[in-house]
Amino acid sequence: MTEHYLEDFAVGQTFASGRLRVDAERIKDFAAEFDPQPFHLDEQAAQDTVFGGLAASGWHTATLTMRLLVESDFRPADGILGAGFDEFRWPRPVRPGDELHLESEILAVRPSKSRPAQGLVKVRTTTFNQNREPVQILVANLFVPRRPA
Amino acid sequence: MTEHYLEDFAVGQTFASGRLRVDAERIKDFAAEFDPQPFHLDEQAAQDTVFGGLAASGWHTATLTMRLLVESDFRPADGILGAGFDEFRWPRPVRPGDELHLESEILAVRPSKSRPAQGLVKVRTTTFNQNREPVQILVANLFVPRRPA
Repeated sequence: MTEHYLEDFAVGQTFASGRLRVDAERIKDFAAEFDPQPFHLDEQAAQDTVFGGLAASGWHTATLTMRLLVESDFRPADGILGAGFDEFRWPRPVRPGDELHLESEILAVRPSKSRPAQGLVKVRTTTFNQNREPVQILVANLFVPRRPA
Repeated sequence: MTEHYLEDFAVGQTFASGRLRVDAERIKDFAAEFDPQPFHLDEQAAQDTVFGGLAASGWHTATLTMRLLVESDFRPADGILGAGFDEFRWPRPVRPGDELHLESEILAVRPSKSRPAQGLVKVRTTTFNQNREPVQILVANLFVPRRPA
């Protein structure tokens, strides 16, 4: 697949992803390793929490988003390298059986002042569930190389 | 361990964590599942990238940070529930063999205007490696319940 340099990106471009289904076992395994809180670990314990049932860790949503993004057509030449985030939130939880997909849109493209061989691309990635409800909104600034002369 | 309500938090309080060591195998396994890019997957392939050698995915650093935070003394009564982030960046990569620990500091505490039973706590969590170099800086706004009357 073609890799993209700074000059290939333009404001308004969009990128879609494949789909990824999350089941209860994986939600609990992820939580046991990285976010061992009752509402991510056990259906029964989750009933009496603010989630009212088992919910994926927000960090699980974030890492599944990264997986979908890496496998999408969004392909900066040196890889997906985050310089920082302008926005990052989880408007609703991911539930067992949810199927996620992404829509990414380029919001800004600019050369770097300090590094002439590089630029920055600002991209908003929205992660949707199968009902087209957003479960994560992430606005990231990424380092992207300029096309070699 | 005592769980904390909004009234128990105050600006300037700090929380420390235990330590967690990251090895090359775990870096590669995590990347294979969530961030399959060459600099996270393979020592040889990583040599010719911007990282100049195997580096953990930033999302791996983030999830290890969450693990350390959940196991620390920072213990809001309803769990660690993110409302959003003011800052989130990775000043340097985590390398194989690094040992991570956290320092968290409360930056703001305020009641919620829309939800009288809740408040928001702003906490900066810095993740350090064994050389006390910051590898992640995260400023999060968390929902914390008020103490029941």
